[in-house]
Amino acid sequence: MRQAVDLNKAYRLLNHGPTVLVSSAHGGRQNVMAAAWSMPLDFSPPKVCVVIDKNTLTRELVEASGELVLNIPARSLAAATEAVGTHSGRDGDKFAEFGLGHSPASLVGAPLLDGCLAWLECKVIVERHNQDAYDLFIAEVVAAWADPRDFSEGHWHFEAGRERSIHYVAGGTFFETGAEFSVK
Amino acid sequence: MRQAVDLNKAYRLLNHGPTVLVSSAHGGRQNVMAAAWSMPLDFSPPKVCVVIDKNTLTRELVEASGELVLNIPARSLAAATEAVGTHSGRDGDKFAEFGLGHSPASLVGAPLLDGCLAWLECKVIVERHNQDAYDLFIAEVVAAWADPRDFSEGHWHFEAGRERSIHYVAGGTFFETGAEFSVK
Repeated sequence: MRQAVDLNKAYRLLNHGPTVLVSSAHGGRQNVMAAAWSMPLDFSPPKVCVVIDKNTLTRELVEASGELVLNIPARSLAAATEAVGTHSGRDGDKFAEFGLGHSPASLVGAPLLDGCLAWLECKVIVERHNQDAYDLFIAEVVAAWADPRDFSEGHWHFEAGRERSIHYVAGGTFFETGAEFSVK
Repeated sequence: MRQAVDLNKAYRLLNHGPTVLVSSAHGGRQNVMAAAWSMPLDFSPPKVCVVIDKNTLTRELVEASGELVLNIPARSLAAATEAVGTHSGRDGDKFAEFGLGHSPASLVGAPLLDGCLAWLECKVIVERHNQDAYDLFIAEVVAAWADPRDFSEGHWHFEAGRERSIHYVAGGTFFETGAEFSVK
């Protein structure tokens, strides 16, 4: 289930630091990999940073297409997140290998991974030095979506029985996004 | 309570995407501000990214000193995190104003904020274009510390009764770091 997210609220999808899956496509190939290292970079127009290693197929597809999607997986995708983070798309289509469904995005060629909580369609702002020296990509968010059962009107509202986002640590270990609280 | 963290494990302090407090010092002045937008950038030597707005005193002190500390606050510092994120150090010493204790760092002039779970002492790798165009800072972690009750031997182990890290969303609302789980 997907509902458009106002672009000026898109940063809130990433603000709490969830692990994301980066999907990409170019020239008839597509891929998905895990990225624990992403963050918002600006509010409006929304921008993001994400680290994409030189040795990955994702890097090749993102540099060739200038596009990517940051998918925010729910907990039931944690095993798949670990799997797509440790297998290379060069060894076979990871969507098929790990039984991951996907749908077309609205403004970019990279697919939206099914079963996620939210999706950020992004176009790369080419910064050669950052990409070459640090594997660091800057991208503008051109469309954003969320499952309205979990995020609507600019707010997360994880309810009982709904799965939460996840935060990768290392070695197959994650933290779930925990209790919400307010200091106001 | 502080114990040194091996530099090649320092990324694990930030990998789950907690909100951090950036402390800084230069020329007899010091400051602390909140930053929801930070992430690891490399494993070894460890590097981090953090977004520091042009209008902040922190920006002035970090650019002048070339140093900063990323402090990872525990939940009891959430109200202070919100406060130091919405008040400027130009209006007075925020450590004094919000009753925040601090201790000297080992390799940088910026102080370590008391009551945090972990601390990353960092030296800025000057990247003028990123700083000017995106408010984006890249820094190398030169020393790292953690409260051994929460992180030791390269692993977080939040125990019953210990406070967890926090993840800012917006408008005074946070998520606590939730349950740990493994997919291995």
